[in-house]
Amino acid sequence: MTSQVQLSLFDLKLADDIRQSKYVVGSPRIESDSRESSISEFSESFPSIALKEKHIIYDSSNLCSRLNSSSTLNPEPTNTIITTACGANGTYSEGYTGSLEGPEKLLEIWFCPRDSSIQVPHNNSSMDSNVLGMRSIPLEDIEKMLMLVNCSIIQSHSNDFCDSYILSESSLFVYPNKLIIKTCGTTTLLLALQRILDLASEYCSYLSPFKIFYSRKSFMFPELQQIPHNSWDNEVSHLNSFFPTGSAYTIGNLNSDYWHLFIASLDPTSFQVSPKIPSKTITPPNKGDTTIEILMTGLDPKCMELFYCSEDPRSVEGLEGGKFVENSSGISSIYSKAKVFSYLFSPCGLSSNGHVDDSYFTIHVTPESNCSYASFETNVPLSNPNSDDINTLISKVIKIFGPSQFTVTVFYQSDDDDFENTNSSPIHKQPSFTTKKRIDNFTSTDRIHYELDDYHLHYSHFVKS
Amino acid sequence: MTSQVQLSLFDLKLADDIRQSKYVVGSPRIESDSRESSISEFSESFPSIALKEKHIIYDSSNLCSRLNSSSTLNPEPTNTIITTACGANGTYSEGYTGSLEGPEKLLEIWFCPRDSSIQVPHNNSSMDSNVLGMRSIPLEDIEKMLMLVNCSIIQSHSNDFCDSYILSESSLFVYPNKLIIKTCGTTTLLLALQRILDLASEYCSYLSPFKIFYSRKSFMFPELQQIPHNSWDNEVSHLNSFFPTGSAYTIGNLNSDYWHLFIASLDPTSFQVSPKIPSKTITPPNKGDTTIEILMTGLDPKCMELFYCSEDPRSVEGLEGGKFVENSSGISSIYSKAKVFSYLFSPCGLSSNGHVDDSYFTIHVTPESNCSYASFETNVPLSNPNSDDINTLISKVIKIFGPSQFTVTVFYQSDDDDFENTNSSPIHKQPSFTTKKRIDNFTSTDRIHYELDDYHLHYSHFVKS
Repeated sequence: MTSQVQLSLFDLKLADDIRQSKYVVGSPRIESDSRESSISEFSESFPSIALKEKHIIYDSSNLCSRLNSSSTLNPEPTNTIITTACGANGTYSEGYTGSLEGPEKLLEIWFCPRDSSIQVPHNNSSMDSNVLGMRSIPLEDIEKMLMLVNCSIIQSHSNDFCDSYILSESSLFVYPNKLIIKTCGTTTLLLALQRILDLASEYCSYLSPFKIFYSRKSFMFPELQQIPHNSWDNEVSHLNSFFPTGSAYTIGNLNSDYWHLFIASLDPTSFQVSPKIPSKTITPPNKGDTTIEILMTGLDPKCMELFYCSEDPRSVEGLEGGKFVENSSGISSIYSKAKVFSYLFSPCGLSSNGHVDDSYFTIHVTPESNCSYASFETNVPLSNPNSDDINTLISKVIKIFGPSQFTVTVFYQSDDDDFENTNSSPIHKQPSFTTKKRIDNFTSTDRIHYELDDYHLHYSHFVKS
Repeated sequence: MTSQVQLSLFDLKLADDIRQSKYVVGSPRIESDSRESSISEFSESFPSIALKEKHIIYDSSNLCSRLNSSSTLNPEPTNTIITTACGANGTYSEGYTGSLEGPEKLLEIWFCPRDSSIQVPHNNSSMDSNVLGMRSIPLEDIEKMLMLVNCSIIQSHSNDFCDSYILSESSLFVYPNKLIIKTCGTTTLLLALQRILDLASEYCSYLSPFKIFYSRKSFMFPELQQIPHNSWDNEVSHLNSFFPTGSAYTIGNLNSDYWHLFIASLDPTSFQVSPKIPSKTITPPNKGDTTIEILMTGLDPKCMELFYCSEDPRSVEGLEGGKFVENSSGISSIYSKAKVFSYLFSPCGLSSNGHVDDSYFTIHVTPESNCSYASFETNVPLSNPNSDDINTLISKVIKIFGPSQFTVTVFYQSDDDDFENTNSSPIHKQPSFTTKKRIDNFTSTDRIHYELDDYHLHYSHFVKS
């Protein structure tokens, strides 16, 4: 009932990011090639089957068995291409207006065992077949869930630790005990929240959500977003209907770039999707978790030339073109030991998913000059927690894209043991997570520190000096 | 033109603090006594004159001459009572609904000489007759300005450093080079912004604004506010029309208590109310400025009994009752050396203005249980910048009011000399401004640090453990 009342308010609320709008009326950049048709063309070389729900073209040789809950996991990494004739909503579909909303909606949900006698692998550590967790959700169900988001799977990769997907709009990572989904354009990510919780309940009955993060940068074209993403108020109302004890923040300068965050920490005893198994004391498996995002706008057109399909035969849509751009842009050298999968879209745009041991990184690039945007996200630990580490990483990433402005968010857990007896903030002890005031030729206009429950957030916004 | 376009949007925006609403429909707490009638009754003992604009009752023996721009300032502190039959809008006037909006709108404007050859006293330091600055604005003009805000003067006090006023809704402090005005209820503070700038231009032609702070806590009854205060978006639009380079922030948990801030730093060469005197390089006089606010809600009804007029003959409306409450509540012991003026309203409520050398503090109390609120604000320097100082002050203040929740904001300037070459935040070096995680029986739910231009803000919200 509460949820219905809140939803009925949606159409009364106005886009809250209206100041950010960069919508170009009559933009000359409308592209005749749609991502939809390009994907179909690209995927003709792969075997296909038709499902009831939608036309799906994919290599079925091992994917279904790999992800089926009753299967034994194949420990060898596999590359699988899945494309679909639907999806691509709000990006390069027929309705494409020349104004692609690059900034993504990002949802991360951590799960815990309801019964403490059942072990969940610590953080991203190696799994065995008894603890597939979220990875036991059948592919078909993930695809149906993604239909609610209005996007689809383009490519997938699995290793010992997780299943990763390049989507028609951004990326999805599924670990046994957490799910990270990031979708750009006019996707409706939060409309899939109930389905995700239902799937966790149905296929991984021992799992219960205990930590939820939802975040996004201010939109460039907020007026194009669908309910509930047409305003932060509506997104918060939607999230509150699931997690009434959550906290919502708007961080940064409302007259410039800013960033929204919803975070909820749940006691599994008070939130059960289905009460089949009673809750007991649990040990949250997120200790040491760190996530870094670098969100860049106003990208250098010269740097962006690489991110278009071109007459160069190596620069073609798909994984091959993706690998070429990955290597020539410098993406492949961010983490030298990473296993990276990149997809170059037609006419332009790149998505990369990378794996470093049990960690991931993901990059998405929208190169069009009227809405250029690139995002970098990782949970790869800062290898040397010395003072320059985060700043060196930022420097490496921004060199690839040449932004005029960028925002950095760093989430990390801190040891609060002596928090109570001191008046210093834990962030004071974590200089490795703090950005410098100046990085290369950029100056920070906002440096903001939030102490949130057991997490800490360092936010900074940089503009070219 | 820009301003008009923005203003036309006002009625399209909804109250952004709607989640905070504590409006009680059909509240039984409507009081039959209005502040208006009580003030008239109280002020009958003072000589009166009638002005064209409104009926004003006040002691005219020295006030006009003291504040007239051509007068010589009386260095002796004076107490003067001024009351008015208008004002009291949104508090205890006939329209009082039983739901008083205690949380104030706070505007602070710093001025600089346009011509560097003209000296402005540093910070709040002693003035001479050549640098009256904002204090040279005639009282009549201040009263007219306050009519735009929908409030009026109740009491005033002057010393060597400033003129302070207790208003029908909160307080006003006028220093030679800055003006601090804080108004509660449904006052329309920002509608007086143009008039304040005009007065500075007309009477203090050597002054130009160089720093503007506007802030307020989330409203309890946002739907009762008038344009532009009916939403933060509208307030920001209004402020942007004056200060287009300003920054706007919403700080804290949107699902709980939060706080809005607009801050603008102006180069006087780019913002001149009248270009009579050319701008030159200036030295901003705000070095070392610190402002602390403690905003309390859910006050202990037992503590609040003191803040009502009662059958006790000492507890009567006016300065006498104010002094009684000031002493019996503990307000007088916050700063032992302070000179304090307090006014007890009928049927309830207290406003106190205090002076400690060149600094001020101000307290406003709304004791009604359905909307109880108390605010404490000061720029008195933390005398001993050791680790416990801010926490000791907070502890002292909250004991007086017994809140269930409170928010602390600390604005301070920091020495950023080595900011560029380190990656640590300046706040790390200022532990004296950082609140503890726990104070008495309260726990901080949000601790947030903003680095804003040359100011730093420490925000924390506490709830009873």
